[in-house]
Amino acid sequence: MSDKNMHIIADFQIIPIGAGTSLSQHIAECEKILEKFELKIVLHTMGTNIEGEWNEVLAAVKQCHEEMHKKGVQRLMTSLKLSSRIDHQQ
Amino acid sequence: MSDKNMHIIADFQIIPIGAGTSLSQHIAECEKILEKFELKIVLHTMGTNIEGEWNEVLAAVKQCHEEMHKKGVQRLMTSLKLSSRIDHQQ
Amino acid sequence: MSDKNMHIIADFQIIPIGAGTSLSQHIAECEKILEKFELKIVLHTMGTNIEGEWNEVLAAVKQCHEEMHKKGVQRLMTSLKLSSRIDHQQ
Amino acid sequence: MSDKNMHIIADFQIIPIGAGTSLSQHIAECEKILEKFELKIVLHTMGTNIEGEWNEVLAAVKQCHEEMHKKGVQRLMTSLKLSSRIDHQQ
Repeated sequence: MSDKNMHIIADFQIIPIGAGTSLSQHIAECEKILEKFELKIVLHTMGTNIEGEWNEVLAAVKQCHEEMHKKGVQRLMTSLKLSSRIDHQQ
Repeated sequence: MSDKNMHIIADFQIIPIGAGTSLSQHIAECEKILEKFELKIVLHTMGTNIEGEWNEVLAAVKQCHEEMHKKGVQRLMTSLKLSSRIDHQQ
Repeated sequence: MSDKNMHIIADFQIIPIGAGTSLSQHIAECEKILEKFELKIVLHTMGTNIEGEWNEVLAAVKQCHEEMHKKGVQRLMTSLKLSSRIDHQQ
Repeated sequence: MSDKNMHIIADFQIIPIGAGTSLSQHIAECEKILEKFELKIVLHTMGTNIEGEWNEVLAAVKQCHEEMHKKGVQRLMTSLKLSSRIDHQQ
């Protein structure tokens, strides 16, 4: 992945599959991971808005997958929106 | 981003905003970028299925944003699904 | 569409394509439409959380498409998440 | 929901939550439901492309939720893209 900075706004939803119907504990663990990164984070009902550099955002999302698999979640489906613009600051 | 391998299946849709209603030319340019990476790629009506390693997939998606901005597209919105599993091979 | 009630939580993002890079005016018009329906609505950075009955939610989303096309937006891409559950109230 | 026709292309992905990690059986049941409607349907690796009238498409998606809940799936998360345009035929 290129080292170039690219400021993005993202919307991140991670769904553990086969880990029961209660997802809140998993989501909470994932939020703790996101907070370790240099990102602006705002939770909403169906996901998390993330603002920061592309590489930092995607490193955080990858770590969520890695940690949740480590804790035994067999299957994960992430839905991610990534918005970038060059006309003016987001 | 961690160097660890993580095999994923992705679904990638990129939407140029403010670049007219005809998106096919932009999508074609993006496909050419994806083909340079070590990825398995299959187009469908509303996006592209991508199979490969996490870092490779996300490097390809980032390069699409970089190249399209270079060509003058002011704003981009990507919708990305990322599926990973550890119970068996996808 | 069946008349049966189904309570859902939705996440709705509508993107006008070919209507310039500034989307805020279009989004504001769409919010006004949503407010006419019997729905619980909360905006976030990249979309709108909507809570209500399936038919009501989808009627609202359809009206957004209809009204924005009437106002001249040539092309629209909606991204919609729909969550339903029967284990307990959402 | 208005009775007006609106031709759309959709991308539909339904995820049963808490129903194990193997989703193929559920997806197959859902495909059978979609086939009963007057829709053009093409499966891909991470979802189903659907072409048809707005009301018909959304009736089909609702019936998938209804039938899967009837069969005991406690929680469902659908990801749906809806594309409409008035500049020319899709």
